[in-house]
Amino acid sequence: MKNIAVWGFSWVPPFAQGLVRDLRVRWALEEAGLAYESRWIDADERNSEGYRRKHPFGVVPALDTDGETLIESGAIVHAIAEQCEVLMPQDLRTETLAWMFAALNTVEPPLWNLFVIDRLHGDEAWTRLRRPGAVDEAKARLAALSAWLEGREYLLGRFTAADILMATVLRFVRHTDLVAEFTPLDDYLKRCEARPALQAALRDQAAGYLRNTPVAA
Amino acid sequence: MKNIAVWGFSWVPPFAQGLVRDLRVRWALEEAGLAYESRWIDADERNSEGYRRKHPFGVVPALDTDGETLIESGAIVHAIAEQCEVLMPQDLRTETLAWMFAALNTVEPPLWNLFVIDRLHGDEAWTRLRRPGAVDEAKARLAALSAWLEGREYLLGRFTAADILMATVLRFVRHTDLVAEFTPLDDYLKRCEARPALQAALRDQAAGYLRNTPVAA
Repeated sequence: MKNIAVWGFSWVPPFAQGLVRDLRVRWALEEAGLAYESRWIDADERNSEGYRRKHPFGVVPALDTDGETLIESGAIVHAIAEQCEVLMPQDLRTETLAWMFAALNTVEPPLWNLFVIDRLHGDEAWTRLRRPGAVDEAKARLAALSAWLEGREYLLGRFTAADILMATVLRFVRHTDLVAEFTPLDDYLKRCEARPALQAALRDQAAGYLRNTPVAA
Repeated sequence: MKNIAVWGFSWVPPFAQGLVRDLRVRWALEEAGLAYESRWIDADERNSEGYRRKHPFGVVPALDTDGETLIESGAIVHAIAEQCEVLMPQDLRTETLAWMFAALNTVEPPLWNLFVIDRLHGDEAWTRLRRPGAVDEAKARLAALSAWLEGREYLLGRFTAADILMATVLRFVRHTDLVAEFTPLDDYLKRCEARPALQAALRDQAAGYLRNTPVAA
């Protein structure tokens, strides 16, 4: 992979900073030691015809490399991992992909649901009625994940691309104490968040937001 | 892949029949021409210690093959596709995985949300307040997908594993007219649903439910 550029939103409100999914791609690139540039689009541009030609759904991230564009954080992280033994060891390829899908298709839905309820619709009346059930659903999934993590430093023992997706998914409920209620899970997330590659990725993303902060914000 | 067994729920209520995610795996196996057996667990068993050893989250599907167990419908379909040129052509490997993630991580969330609202919580007061916004979110995603499908028979031109995931995701809103509102999308789903391999997969799944219908149901 050469001439890599990552597309992210030029600015998002503080409650969303550090959660937008280009973080996953930046983190993977940092772990792999691959240099990259950042491209920023603002919220109005995302539905422009130009950006839709790059990304059919008008969301981020997208990755440009050697004139090709790749979409979907899961697929981009996988493409990076295919070139990096650290992110996807040869003998754990199938398991790594299984846990990547587990992060995005089994753990993310109830956690994202809670993020939507609390952070995107928190002032709407329906959320008071819906929230208790949504919390129970999130807890059930987190309990299962925490049980799996007992005695494991990372999802597959050693760090892989699956941990990048799982840790960024867990961060969607950082506004709650849900992760902290499960010690193995809490330890796991802290272990992931302490990695220098994630810290570098967060700095990259934050630098863009800082440069692009709206005057009125 | 040899000695293949697919795990599904032994019975689900009619509103969920034909939607449970082992359908994806059965469909992929039928497309690939691989023989398989079915294993059924009932809803009580899913949280048993025995099944949790097979699947850490206690959900379906799981796939047994040669003594190994694989979880996550996306990962299982990918593992089958890796052995089947029809499901993942060599020159479309990266794109196929990108659209598999697009199906499960970009299109599924708003459609599944609507399924949850209408089919799992339809009698609760909060859904009347939440539903209009949820419909708008689903429509926005479907409009983008429909625009992509204009002039394409399948997501990548020819049929791939990504279509298995996308079509099964679109079926989550079969209780609405949302897909029918977009002609390219409607044509696409009908094209996918007409495939003999999906019809065979639906028959497999239905045969299990029929045998296991609760006496009181």
